Amino acid sequence: MALIRRFHETDWPVVYPMLRATFEAGDSYAFSPDSTEAEIHRVWIEVPTATYVACSPDGQLLGTYFIKPNQPDLGAHVCNCGYVVALAAQGQGIASAMCEHSQAEGIFMGFRAMQFNLVVSTNERAVRLWRKLGFSGVGTLPGAFRHLQLGYVDALVMFKKLST
Amino acid sequence: MALIRRFHETDWPVVYPMLRATFEAGDSYAFSPDSTEAEIHRVWIEVPTATYVACSPDGQLLGTYFIKPNQPDLGAHVCNCGYVVALAAQGQGIASAMCEHSQAEGIFMGFRAMQFNLVVSTNERAVRLWRKLGFSGVGTLPGAFRHLQLGYVDALVMFKKLST
Repeated sequence: MALIRRFHETDWPVVYPMLRATFEAGDSYAFSPDSTEAEIHRVWIEVPTATYVACSPDGQLLGTYFIKPNQPDLGAHVCNCGYVVALAAQGQGIASAMCEHSQAEGIFMGFRAMQFNLVVSTNERAVRLWRKLGFSGVGTLPGAFRHLQLGYVDALVMFKKLST
Repeated sequence: MALIRRFHETDWPVVYPMLRATFEAGDSYAFSPDSTEAEIHRVWIEVPTATYVACSPDGQLLGTYFIKPNQPDLGAHVCNCGYVVALAAQGQGIASAMCEHSQAEGIFMGFRAMQFNLVVSTNERAVRLWRKLGFSGVGTLPGAFRHLQLGYVDALVMFKKLST
């Protein structure tokens, strides 16, 4: 069972390679595979409202996620999150646990809904997981993601109401 | 017939009140109605790849638009634009002319598609115009825009391929 807590700067030396490996794969996030450490720190730690880490019972970092408003003021009641799981921790339900946690945090922070803007269609595990967790596919953006292996592939906009 | 050209800083004293009035209405853009001049300058002039103005034959400014990548690197082949028409110039086809111009500029800059992320559903004139200009509704984001008069209203994601 993963413990999820706020990110501290002392986590960065473990969080950074996790993010770097994910962005370098170029199959799930639009952030450049050539992003510098400062750029990755900016998008994952500085820009978001809050960043979290998922830990094993012995304190090993298994994943990380951020939460932030998806749009400026008149759209700022909808949040956006990004989740990354360490390669060695995949298939253990960490993404699912982080997404559930982020929804609770989102409600606590006053967000009314959560939106994913660019879910890569070929990332089938992610699409399946978000659907299972109650997200609806708003629609498909044709060729909106330049997959490093597959070239231009479709991306989905996904959405879930948080408030009851 | 409107002439459309690149924005120059000397246009700002006329462009700024145009943007300010639009954002203050709180019925079409998510930018805060209380945005400062510096914030408006940042989102309209500094962040975008380029900003343009539409002028009457005698040089009066009738509208303005920006173009920028909609996502970071692996999504940066899709552009995003925002258009504002001066209150006194509405209903003269200025938005239409600017949108056509932006599509040509987008193609010239190498963008493959154009995406609008938050078209306010109650802004029927805009929705109708984008459809007429070839944009498809990707889907509807329920309650994603906090309209200053109407409260939470739906918003549309709209998309058009630019490359042939």
